[in-house]
Amino acid sequence: MEIVSENRSHGGRQLVVKHASSSTSTDMTFSIFLPPQAETRPCPVLWYLSGLTCTHANVTEKGEYRAACAKHGIIFVAPDTSPRGEEVPDDPEGLWDFGQGAGFYLDATEEPWSRHFNMASYLIDELPRFVAEHFQIDPERQGITGHSMGGHGALTLALKNPERFHSVSAFSPIVAPGQVPWGRKALRHYLGEEGPAWRQHDAVALIDDGASVDEILVDIGEADPFIEKELRPELLEQSCARAGIKLTLRRQPGYDHSYYFISTFMADHIGWHAERLNRG
Amino acid sequence: MEIVSENRSHGGRQLVVKHASSSTSTDMTFSIFLPPQAETRPCPVLWYLSGLTCTHANVTEKGEYRAACAKHGIIFVAPDTSPRGEEVPDDPEGLWDFGQGAGFYLDATEEPWSRHFNMASYLIDELPRFVAEHFQIDPERQGITGHSMGGHGALTLALKNPERFHSVSAFSPIVAPGQVPWGRKALRHYLGEEGPAWRQHDAVALIDDGASVDEILVDIGEADPFIEKELRPELLEQSCARAGIKLTLRRQPGYDHSYYFISTFMADHIGWHAERLNRG
Repeated sequence: MEIVSENRSHGGRQLVVKHASSSTSTDMTFSIFLPPQAETRPCPVLWYLSGLTCTHANVTEKGEYRAACAKHGIIFVAPDTSPRGEEVPDDPEGLWDFGQGAGFYLDATEEPWSRHFNMASYLIDELPRFVAEHFQIDPERQGITGHSMGGHGALTLALKNPERFHSVSAFSPIVAPGQVPWGRKALRHYLGEEGPAWRQHDAVALIDDGASVDEILVDIGEADPFIEKELRPELLEQSCARAGIKLTLRRQPGYDHSYYFISTFMADHIGWHAERLNRG
Repeated sequence: MEIVSENRSHGGRQLVVKHASSSTSTDMTFSIFLPPQAETRPCPVLWYLSGLTCTHANVTEKGEYRAACAKHGIIFVAPDTSPRGEEVPDDPEGLWDFGQGAGFYLDATEEPWSRHFNMASYLIDELPRFVAEHFQIDPERQGITGHSMGGHGALTLALKNPERFHSVSAFSPIVAPGQVPWGRKALRHYLGEEGPAWRQHDAVALIDDGASVDEILVDIGEADPFIEKELRPELLEQSCARAGIKLTLRRQPGYDHSYYFISTFMADHIGWHAERLNRG
């Protein structure tokens, strides 16, 4: 474990950590905020998955989560969005919506992606084990959230691992990658032609196929330029209604897709997770 | 006036604005946050001056000021730290502590700096006029704060313009540029050899020469690597004690010079200014 940086903030410690990952066969970097409470007792963890093009740094610098985490005693972990490095393949056309910075939180099965692009294994097995070894977390109390592609990651990982995650929320998530351009491009490259495997990485398909969680909180900006073509919150709304999942979907007037939006509602989401994770 | 960007955030509007400045003979860019209250009535303004190497963007992205400004109805303006551009001279040795990104909030009198480096005139005359023309501010209620070199700017501009600024605070300020390396380098280049002009741009010298304000709030990190050589808060402490200025100097254990420190105490500072600006 290499501590890239450590800064005191909001009474706690903001760390950036680098470690060798066997899931991705690369070094991986993540940030972790330890609230003051974490110095004396195991605390709940909230995982935050970032959107396309982001690293751990975007939310760490712009997310405005530390005050709320310090208030509620929540450890906040922000992983990277994909493996990175010269040896890691990237979008063949050099675009930003696929490849490095766009791992889509799945394990790729297709060449040349399958060697490195194993973000699901990294996030479900390797990173939680690594974090639990080095920091005092309470493994029984974990929540997950994320933004855009990271909202997709949060929803799908929570639906597939309900025993792991006791709360799930998202900011402007991609809810049905199998039905939208960003998602179809990624799923085709990482998983091959459209088929059953795609449905394992699509929140709406997972719900339609029977996966479930008790409740979901989603905020989305009405001025988000991606809402109609890529995010399509109405599909999640319809699936949750059919499945009887309690979805709180808030369409926020005037807000866009940026961290100016995310940071506005971050404290709300952390409070919502804390209420569920600190119960009983 | 060119609106570079506008994003809804925390119920208000975060803008980045570019305009042609006659003080600096360049375009200048600043950010302004308009809290929800500013849509219906003139609001108090808090000026935030940034530190060495920064632009408006650092605090705008990392400062975590919007929630508190929205709570208290404070307009927050973050100017750049110097003129910029190919035509603007820069540090002859290519260092970061002088020249572009390091205007020290004064009007230079020496060549080749005096044509562009007129940040005091820009901040005291031109920018407030421009802001008042385009946004609904209450000119009778203005406060000022800043970080490091910007703390120096906040303290000196407040001491020299007590009729303008009704509250002043600083994060890890350079309090006596005439006595420390960063300051001496800048003052020598911008103002010529050490002499009476230097004392006009040095908070400790200004106080010793009789300038005054009612009270000052300063936060500084005890783990700040610049505290002993560049910041020297004890000099401000001594001058304020001699002059009878009520200084609240808080040495914060474990905190450094970064925005992880600033953002921790930003809401406190905004509340402190709001209390004074919203009085009566």
